[in-house]
Amino acid sequence: MADGTFITFEGIDGSGKSTQARLLAEHLRSAGAEVVLTREPGGSEGAEEIRHLLLTGDPARWSAETELLLFTAARRDHLEKTIRPALAAGKTVISDRFADSTRVYQGATRGDLRGTVDQLHALMIGREPDLTFIIDMDPKIALQRGLARGSGEDRFEDFGLGFQETLRHGFLALARSASERCIVIDGNRPLEAVAAEVRVQFEARR
Amino acid sequence: MADGTFITFEGIDGSGKSTQARLLAEHLRSAGAEVVLTREPGGSEGAEEIRHLLLTGDPARWSAETELLLFTAARRDHLEKTIRPALAAGKTVISDRFADSTRVYQGATRGDLRGTVDQLHALMIGREPDLTFIIDMDPKIALQRGLARGSGEDRFEDFGLGFQETLRHGFLALARSASERCIVIDGNRPLEAVAAEVRVQFEARR
Repeated sequence: MADGTFITFEGIDGSGKSTQARLLAEHLRSAGAEVVLTREPGGSEGAEEIRHLLLTGDPARWSAETELLLFTAARRDHLEKTIRPALAAGKTVISDRFADSTRVYQGATRGDLRGTVDQLHALMIGREPDLTFIIDMDPKIALQRGLARGSGEDRFEDFGLGFQETLRHGFLALARSASERCIVIDGNRPLEAVAAEVRVQFEARR
Repeated sequence: MADGTFITFEGIDGSGKSTQARLLAEHLRSAGAEVVLTREPGGSEGAEEIRHLLLTGDPARWSAETELLLFTAARRDHLEKTIRPALAAGKTVISDRFADSTRVYQGATRGDLRGTVDQLHALMIGREPDLTFIIDMDPKIALQRGLARGSGEDRFEDFGLGFQETLRHGFLALARSASERCIVIDGNRPLEAVAAEVRVQFEARR
């Protein structure tokens, strides 16, 4: 059996990427596909344990380097236990965040580590998505949505508007540098219009 | 102020390395030195949290690769929060286990990962000890001591005599390949005789 397709959704907090990931999963399932919808950090039992270490307690207790190793450990577990087995069974895997989030967040906070991020990915993860939707959105709107969501768990929302603008540019730069797999979707529109464009772009590339 | 000396003790479980690390620390303190006695996995608050993930629950839930990333995350935290600050303050740091344990255990269980272990160490840790005491011991005796200790926490003790023999040879091979910093000490002797040789060898190299 041919391997399934590995799709990721990326974007700043509040961009609606999680909703869009879910809507694409529902659409594909309604068309008869077997879809595994997952997320990072987390996405497997062990990765959720590591997520708990990362997202509870004082985040400042980890340096950028240690945090990077923990995110990579979680990603490795996610890849081994959830993503690879599903792809090998011919299923479609849709992940809300993957390695691009690490690249962009680390690039925005510790640009000097970007080379290390890439080397660590090459050494311990290797796999890239077949297709990445970057939901692009005005950070002012995204930040409002993010704060309104009030999950309290997503520490990246604490950094404020300037940081979200830096992240937005990071995702757009990444889309240009990995244009063979990245599709930028304008997220500043009603949810259903965004979902419709995601479906059109997906169909055009399958 | 000149950096302090970084000393590690390595060896199979039950070899007495932890006792010897403590005895050398006590000896140096009685001579007026400031000594930080630490251990791996763990040795800092964050690293102890990661240690807890590694040493509780079903160890089989982590692959060798994920485990390696978690050990490296713990080591990075240990290095940043405990080892480097102490060395920078001119103190002597004595660690019960460090990167050599990872090299030897991974070499014994997943020899194909040895190159990955070295690359990951170079990328995220970098630092080697100034001096490493490898307490060499007949695995039959070491295993009895390890079982007698009955800590229940050290999963490596569960692998049995054949595995301990493989590890012993791994530590001896490592001592040959890093002979500029490794000193093999015959641990098959009364504790005080071993401690006396450790002191003599330390003094000869300070």
